[in-house]
Amino acid sequence: MDATGAVTRAIADFAVRRPAVGDEVCVGLSGGPDSLALVACAVRAGLRVHALVVDHGLQPGSDAVAVEAADAARGLGAEATVLPVSVGSDGGMEAAARTARYAALDDARDGRAVLLAHTADDQAETVVLGLARGSGARSIAGMRPWNPPWGRPLLRIRRAQTLAVCIELGLRPHRDPHNRDPRFTRVRVRGEVLPLLDDVLHGGVVDALGRTATALQADNDALDALAEDWYRRAAVEGDLDAEVLAAAPAALRTRVLRRWLLDVGATEPTHRVIGAVDRLIVEPGSHGHVAIGGDPTSRTVVARAGPRLHVVHLSR
Amino acid sequence: MDATGAVTRAIADFAVRRPAVGDEVCVGLSGGPDSLALVACAVRAGLRVHALVVDHGLQPGSDAVAVEAADAARGLGAEATVLPVSVGSDGGMEAAARTARYAALDDARDGRAVLLAHTADDQAETVVLGLARGSGARSIAGMRPWNPPWGRPLLRIRRAQTLAVCIELGLRPHRDPHNRDPRFTRVRVRGEVLPLLDDVLHGGVVDALGRTATALQADNDALDALAEDWYRRAAVEGDLDAEVLAAAPAALRTRVLRRWLLDVGATEPTHRVIGAVDRLIVEPGSHGHVAIGGDPTSRTVVARAGPRLHVVHLSR
Repeated sequence: MDATGAVTRAIADFAVRRPAVGDEVCVGLSGGPDSLALVACAVRAGLRVHALVVDHGLQPGSDAVAVEAADAARGLGAEATVLPVSVGSDGGMEAAARTARYAALDDARDGRAVLLAHTADDQAETVVLGLARGSGARSIAGMRPWNPPWGRPLLRIRRAQTLAVCIELGLRPHRDPHNRDPRFTRVRVRGEVLPLLDDVLHGGVVDALGRTATALQADNDALDALAEDWYRRAAVEGDLDAEVLAAAPAALRTRVLRRWLLDVGATEPTHRVIGAVDRLIVEPGSHGHVAIGGDPTSRTVVARAGPRLHVVHLSR
Repeated sequence: MDATGAVTRAIADFAVRRPAVGDEVCVGLSGGPDSLALVACAVRAGLRVHALVVDHGLQPGSDAVAVEAADAARGLGAEATVLPVSVGSDGGMEAAARTARYAALDDARDGRAVLLAHTADDQAETVVLGLARGSGARSIAGMRPWNPPWGRPLLRIRRAQTLAVCIELGLRPHRDPHNRDPRFTRVRVRGEVLPLLDDVLHGGVVDALGRTATALQADNDALDALAEDWYRRAAVEGDLDAEVLAAAPAALRTRVLRRWLLDVGATEPTHRVIGAVDRLIVEPGSHGHVAIGGDPTSRTVVARAGPRLHVVHLSR
């Protein structure tokens, strides 16, 4: 089978297995090879495709690139719309562009699913980037194939295959210069880390990382559902019953604590904070309190009083 | 605190938190900096230490290196014994040496725990090596701190700290030339992959991989215990009740299937085999059979008959 056949079948399988995707979909189109191949093959898979081209306005001429991508999509039998956005600066340029992009796609999708062109190579990069966070399965589970309204039918397709689709169909994708700029961590993971890992570990690393992501997503789903049950049983008027929670295995205690800390207004709790609060639960006779951050104008702490953990806002 | 103080405290904490370790322990001693520092600091932590030096006999002069290591241990206040072993060739030289080493240590330990000198750097290497297998949390959860009779008190100590202990105490560790031979995958992970990851991901990678290992060990413990319950409920006279198991989340189904396939004589089942058997459970009206390997003289398959999965040995 040629690459176009393989990618088309992956998209058709993806949609058949998930009736909620529907047969009218949006596709996030950058004009690069992955998303252009996705538009072409989604049309071939029998979907009614509306390509959404976000113009981030970050590079001179980005408007022309967007118009060209939309024209290419129309030439492939899709509808197409250009969505100009303005990118803020919160959390760095990459993160801000991502936030603006997803918001624009969500605004424009009009009830339809949005297919995204992330490939197996993107998934492997995401897993490696997650290793740096060190917060366990959650940080290395990668991207989900279907997280409504976002669908990723190409997570088992290699980037070389989407390039081959473009060649087979005579498409001329745009090459984003950012994709070669080593100031971006992802670019270095792609260009340096993954090739070295593949060499040292004797090949197959992208597939192995993809399997790991899938397995960890399933683990997380099971553990999150169980943690939800424990949370319900241990929650008392906004406090947490430490004696109930002490009977849960460590993996569930830490998940309940993370959820509770977020619910009581902590910022994303670190490994260290969760560990310290957990010791209030499991170490007999423990007392004292743990600072959990959150509202910058107060010192918010978790304290144990008898069987309960509760939150105290100390004034400065 | 100097490195000797930090390592001594790590060992004392390790033993206090795990009464089963006891205060008379064996230590696996290669003569290298990590294990020599472990012997020195375990004695300082107040343990009665018996150093066990395995002589693999793989390099000329290995017997002299072993005798020297044993002498060094005695100079530090430990008992010491050299254990000559003969290394086979099953699964490659590294794996065969490891098998022979653990067997010799287990034979000689005489009811005591055996402390091993794996550091945070070794743990990070093990996690990265596990990424290549791609079998989910099990393959990247690394080494456990306490897996009786094996104890690893240095999993949060960096290799630079054990080297510093040797310098502070004037010890002269042996440098194994194998530790610099790039034909060993682990040596390349240590010398090339981890330094690059640390550079690209802006530092802290060894710590992050260690936290990930700890978190995934907890996840695995919780999921394995739950899978054990499901296995008991779904097992019927050596068969598996697919209708019972269909109600379990995917992470538990795959763990039950792995356990069952091993119990019915499959070799370590691959991701692909487990996935194919799982489809016999979750896809309605599925039939057909899945080859699961195992005994090389027969074709062993799993088939679904009504609500049950069972094993059939087809004759050739």
